[in-house]
Amino acid sequence: MITGKNYIGNQLSADGSVTFKTFNPLLNLENDRIFNEASTDEINKAVAIASEAYKEFSKTSGKKKAAFLNAIADEILALDEVLIATYCSETGLPEGRARGERGRTVGQLRSFAELVKEGAWVEATIDTAQPDRQPMPKSDIRKMLVPLGPVVVFGASNFPLAYSTAGGDTAAALAAGCPVIVKSHPMHAGTGELVASAIIKASIATGMPKGVFSNLNSSGIGVGQILVAHPGVKAVGFTGSIKGGRALYDLAAKREEPIPVFAEMGSVNPVVILPKALENRGESLAKTYAGSVTLGSGQFCTNPGLILGVKGEELTQFTSSLSEEIIKIEPSCMLHPTILGAYEKNKEKAISQEALTVTADYETGVQSNFARQAITTVDGKSFLENKTLHQEVFGPFSLVVQCEDANELTTIISNLEGQLTGTLIAEDNEARKYPALIDALQNRVGRIIYNGVPTGVEVCPAMVHGGPYPASTDSRFTAVGIDSIKRWARPFSYQDWPNELLPSELKDENPLEISRVLNNTQTTAKI
Amino acid sequence: MITGKNYIGNQLSADGSVTFKTFNPLLNLENDRIFNEASTDEINKAVAIASEAYKEFSKTSGKKKAAFLNAIADEILALDEVLIATYCSETGLPEGRARGERGRTVGQLRSFAELVKEGAWVEATIDTAQPDRQPMPKSDIRKMLVPLGPVVVFGASNFPLAYSTAGGDTAAALAAGCPVIVKSHPMHAGTGELVASAIIKASIATGMPKGVFSNLNSSGIGVGQILVAHPGVKAVGFTGSIKGGRALYDLAAKREEPIPVFAEMGSVNPVVILPKALENRGESLAKTYAGSVTLGSGQFCTNPGLILGVKGEELTQFTSSLSEEIIKIEPSCMLHPTILGAYEKNKEKAISQEALTVTADYETGVQSNFARQAITTVDGKSFLENKTLHQEVFGPFSLVVQCEDANELTTIISNLEGQLTGTLIAEDNEARKYPALIDALQNRVGRIIYNGVPTGVEVCPAMVHGGPYPASTDSRFTAVGIDSIKRWARPFSYQDWPNELLPSELKDENPLEISRVLNNTQTTAKI
Repeated sequence: MITGKNYIGNQLSADGSVTFKTFNPLLNLENDRIFNEASTDEINKAVAIASEAYKEFSKTSGKKKAAFLNAIADEILALDEVLIATYCSETGLPEGRARGERGRTVGQLRSFAELVKEGAWVEATIDTAQPDRQPMPKSDIRKMLVPLGPVVVFGASNFPLAYSTAGGDTAAALAAGCPVIVKSHPMHAGTGELVASAIIKASIATGMPKGVFSNLNSSGIGVGQILVAHPGVKAVGFTGSIKGGRALYDLAAKREEPIPVFAEMGSVNPVVILPKALENRGESLAKTYAGSVTLGSGQFCTNPGLILGVKGEELTQFTSSLSEEIIKIEPSCMLHPTILGAYEKNKEKAISQEALTVTADYETGVQSNFARQAITTVDGKSFLENKTLHQEVFGPFSLVVQCEDANELTTIISNLEGQLTGTLIAEDNEARKYPALIDALQNRVGRIIYNGVPTGVEVCPAMVHGGPYPASTDSRFTAVGIDSIKRWARPFSYQDWPNELLPSELKDENPLEISRVLNNTQTTAKI
Repeated sequence: MITGKNYIGNQLSADGSVTFKTFNPLLNLENDRIFNEASTDEINKAVAIASEAYKEFSKTSGKKKAAFLNAIADEILALDEVLIATYCSETGLPEGRARGERGRTVGQLRSFAELVKEGAWVEATIDTAQPDRQPMPKSDIRKMLVPLGPVVVFGASNFPLAYSTAGGDTAAALAAGCPVIVKSHPMHAGTGELVASAIIKASIATGMPKGVFSNLNSSGIGVGQILVAHPGVKAVGFTGSIKGGRALYDLAAKREEPIPVFAEMGSVNPVVILPKALENRGESLAKTYAGSVTLGSGQFCTNPGLILGVKGEELTQFTSSLSEEIIKIEPSCMLHPTILGAYEKNKEKAISQEALTVTADYETGVQSNFARQAITTVDGKSFLENKTLHQEVFGPFSLVVQCEDANELTTIISNLEGQLTGTLIAEDNEARKYPALIDALQNRVGRIIYNGVPTGVEVCPAMVHGGPYPASTDSRFTAVGIDSIKRWARPFSYQDWPNELLPSELKDENPLEISRVLNNTQTTAKI
């Protein structure tokens, strides 16, 4: 079922000479299937047919796009156990995670289907004419969101389903009316091809223009670079490292026509534990956070890599409990030897910093490609002075910062880079005593959590997954939830345009019966 | 009343040694007042107090921000004839234009005041908790737009009031809750200082934090460069040339923390005249377009610099009529000798291109700094092959392209760079015969106009002033109309946050009585 070839639209293609294999980290063995990296010619073909497909797809009705998205979800489910097995063989992640992520992927596709079927997401806004206005008559002006053009989506190593081939970025872009070219992640190229085959089947079954979707294999960074620099590409979605995301952002910014890059990148997700909470619940917090730090081998972008409190006996006790709890947890397999290697290197770098103390480091023998979880601690002053300690260690690792007092804690928060999340752990009425600290935390993050853990990103309309740089390259958009569709659209105005030539969303008779802003009032009324 | 100094928040300051004067193009003489360019130290001070002001201003209520914006409008009107006279002396523009632009400026300020006083612009979205959901409980998540931080606004040479000191960018940024630092345009520094004094008065009268607004003089590009590179600045608004806008965009993209730059830049605003319209209305169109091309000496970003039709007797006749009509119009004064110089250079460059024919060039003696309007024509093939002819000639200049047929016309449109506007001139039922042409035009522009002229940008909710690069650096936002506030804000989520600590917009009791999305339904209900 997996061919190792690229999908250039509906066609399987393997013109290139570069080949590679995926790796099973649990077995510590390469998988059999040989994949063909897309050639420059194949890349150009994929972009050309995407540009052609855009002409029709950008005007395809919400109802038809919904049928397409729902069919993708159905076809993904129809892949059944083959998909689950392939996923596990390419990631080392457990079956339960595979099923859970598949559920999330399917759920995302269906929620975007609902959104575009209903149709109001285009934010239709109509200001009718005032021909008698003095001193100048007023034209009829009508605005709605229209798709940007072909979008390139980079598969994410840590979300082979939910943020890769048919993941959130792809679902949102297709929903918006943008053809998608996926730069498949080399670590799960087989999973990617299976999902791509589901999209292609769905696109044929629902009569989408060919070229609406392509899936390109790559073993390194070359394919992605060519895609981002290609004049036919109009926007980019990426989930991964700061280094990778920034390189794509820089490439896109240097183009003759710069294009938006939505890179969701690194984050240490600071957790602030206020004194009373530490005093009352240190033990149970330690248990909860040991679980959060090690969830999925710490391979979540919302992993709590930084825990801050005011120094004292309670914090020492918490750190000690957290260290004990984390050692009780069985180590788990990381996605790939490369990712494990990076984890070990970055952990080593952190541990080698002066003033840092290791309070837990899983030392007993572990299987190949399994991560040794660790907890470390440092005083506030040393942390503030050493930017190396601010960097993400992607994996089951966390650093407890012992601050002198709440002022130093606030200063530290203010000096952090942008983050996806910030968490405040507090007792009743405790938080209100720290307004400056809360303000500082809000200014550095995209989502703030009270008495919870940052891991676990609910897919719902009110979710913001993003944040000030380098959490993301564009804090004005979320990467999760239905509003992420807005990344792939731009507003467009029609002035005095004939009703018969207007898109349905803006016609006088409101045939889609959507809610629109008509002369400053939200309404489903006709004109 | 004009001191020549900078406003560093509420303080007048003139520490720098670089000085300059503005110029009266009508009198062809320098104005008397000496202005002090802001020093690096003054720039740093302005950013530091803006960052400090952000802490309070970002949380200031919509009602208070509305009072501030309305007070700015009142103070601008209170400047009365001094402002009008200064405006005219620094631009060569007629008094009527000064009054009109002042009206627009005041109108924009009041419309943003209305918007934030009402409060729903923050797009409050609430998904309440589902503690019993299986397999995992769902948290309470609430989202709203929050201001980005200190914003730098560049004054525009061609809109000394409506797109400069207290213009659209400033009004929108202040409305969003962002402190503003204006890099005053050197050509109208006096007008800028007067308006700045109005903002400062208003900010004191309505109790805004000091540092919420600063106005910095500059004679060249240095002050702007320092501002855009400053880590304390979080976003930039610019209206001007492609060269200038792109330079700022590049500078912002290279920062350690890249920031958004909303540059509204050049455009030739293609106008397509379909054959039947040309046949039936060539004469009257020629009159209308002679007026549009020369309006404000052609110094509008929506000036129609490119007119396209299918070649034949009617198009030849139209070109000839347009040429006659434009020569009948009295030349008018340009904003500055530098702008006139650029106009003459760019016009000369266009005229010198092979295959281009000049059909009108105002040749009789004109006053110093007055622009000689011109009409030129070229065949479609030559236009397609020569990108120099695609470039904007900022001033009263237009190029008529004679296409072989509708296909060539469509190809030409498809090969244009991004544009602010596109206009279609057609008879009843004629447009529907050209779907490919209309699609091509839509893909290249931010606003499409039917049987009108592109000049004149209505300030209304449905307006899009922006478009694909290089019309703007970010096609996903409009620079005109209330939705332009969204450039200066980012979404932010609260998860399980205590009601008492939530901002009013998201509290259970909905104290502002705004419309919110509550569990997928738009409502003003409490929870």
